[in-house]
Amino acid sequence: MGDIGREGEAAEAVDDPVGVLAGALAGGAVEVVDLTQPLSEATPVIELPPHLVPIPPLRVHAGPRYGDLPDAWNWLELAEHIGTHVDAPIHWFTGRDGLDMASVPAGRLVGPAVVLDRRAEVAADPEDLLSVEDVLAWQREHGPLPEGGWLLVRTDWDRRADDRELFLNGGVTPGFDAECARWLAHESPLSGVGVQTVGIDAGRAHGFEPPFPMHYHLLGAGKLGLTQLAALDRLPVRGALLVVAPLRLVGGTGSPARVLAFVPGGDGASA
Amino acid sequence: MGDIGREGEAAEAVDDPVGVLAGALAGGAVEVVDLTQPLSEATPVIELPPHLVPIPPLRVHAGPRYGDLPDAWNWLELAEHIGTHVDAPIHWFTGRDGLDMASVPAGRLVGPAVVLDRRAEVAADPEDLLSVEDVLAWQREHGPLPEGGWLLVRTDWDRRADDRELFLNGGVTPGFDAECARWLAHESPLSGVGVQTVGIDAGRAHGFEPPFPMHYHLLGAGKLGLTQLAALDRLPVRGALLVVAPLRLVGGTGSPARVLAFVPGGDGASA
Repeated sequence: MGDIGREGEAAEAVDDPVGVLAGALAGGAVEVVDLTQPLSEATPVIELPPHLVPIPPLRVHAGPRYGDLPDAWNWLELAEHIGTHVDAPIHWFTGRDGLDMASVPAGRLVGPAVVLDRRAEVAADPEDLLSVEDVLAWQREHGPLPEGGWLLVRTDWDRRADDRELFLNGGVTPGFDAECARWLAHESPLSGVGVQTVGIDAGRAHGFEPPFPMHYHLLGAGKLGLTQLAALDRLPVRGALLVVAPLRLVGGTGSPARVLAFVPGGDGASA
Repeated sequence: MGDIGREGEAAEAVDDPVGVLAGALAGGAVEVVDLTQPLSEATPVIELPPHLVPIPPLRVHAGPRYGDLPDAWNWLELAEHIGTHVDAPIHWFTGRDGLDMASVPAGRLVGPAVVLDRRAEVAADPEDLLSVEDVLAWQREHGPLPEGGWLLVRTDWDRRADDRELFLNGGVTPGFDAECARWLAHESPLSGVGVQTVGIDAGRAHGFEPPFPMHYHLLGAGKLGLTQLAALDRLPVRGALLVVAPLRLVGGTGSPARVLAFVPGGDGASA
């Protein structure tokens, strides 16, 4: 438990923390890990219950392709909630007076990440729900959730991401129970919560009370959701710094995002 | 010149560079500065010469908006080259065998940023072109361009960004001469070059030899272009760490991006 709470303590002794990190990146002592799923027409889109409006898949429209012209480019039909993406507070009615995607301050997008390993439970039950007691038990072992940071729940669900059926799994996907959602929203110091499945709520959460409790509570509390993360196997339990980078969409209820992590102890081969 | 070359030197003495930065962010000694323009239907799009295919503006299509439903979201018609965005090597015929947006390694997206102040020259001549000699003079004063880093040319052109006519300025915009483009592409250690105007090439660069030399050389050399940056007035000449975060688009010739900078000496009010 030697690393508990260290995120806030180490800065004073170093004159130039940014230069130190730049040097560590250049020398390979810190690695940039990409937690982003590739985004394409094959990217699975959440299947909502029939009373909700379905979110459209990505469509890529080709513009020019060299030949007589020097350039190539595409334009996209792109839903705000597709692929590795952020849910902004205004995505849900409980957060409708909250921040849109363009208004979330940059400082809210960068913070310490901690990883809660839920692989065993999800392997035993793909509808596994995280509870407050699970989070408290994690805290007893690994220290407090980080102030202004991110709780990332590792399920290795990203290993299904190349197969739409496996990834969506007929709506049988893990998540959080309603009380845990309320607790993370209102009693944790987090900036946001990240998952590896298609949405921050469990597949059957439309039947919870309230329905979609993570959306209801987390976004209602002005916090951020983060979905479809890749490669959480490459993060330590704590000690990584997360950069969550959605587009700065005015009025955006969310956005596809690039999500990068600075990870100590890299082997110099950033990927 | 005390800070010359420091990016690579400071790492060894610090056990946990990532934790140190996290602490400095939490304590306000380092600030996250957002260099991204807000993205909306009002975002100006480059006006290309008539022999090229015009890039479409952003269109926002509203999905549900609360009411009887709990959620709100939009989908977008989004060009890859709009707003604050990255040009990937395959955007140009010279880079057609290079990397698409999804394949650029994460480590290429993070690096030291240096700022070349071109405000005075651009105020005197809005078609000002940066030359190799200008870059060499900058290096004599401020040290070498950073290995794997970013040269950001400050013109404060972002102050025009709310007014499409002023921002596009009838194609009268500053940039780089052809030899400077070649030099930055092939003789600098940079990962990429960033500007505050609508494109990495000057407005009149379609008439240069080769046409659009920054696209031709920089992307042909496998480097990245970065446009429409905001708030370069908030960066030091050197000492910031840049995080360039485009979407991870498979086959993407570029992407709108979130661009953040870690800046020493913040006042604790990240924005």
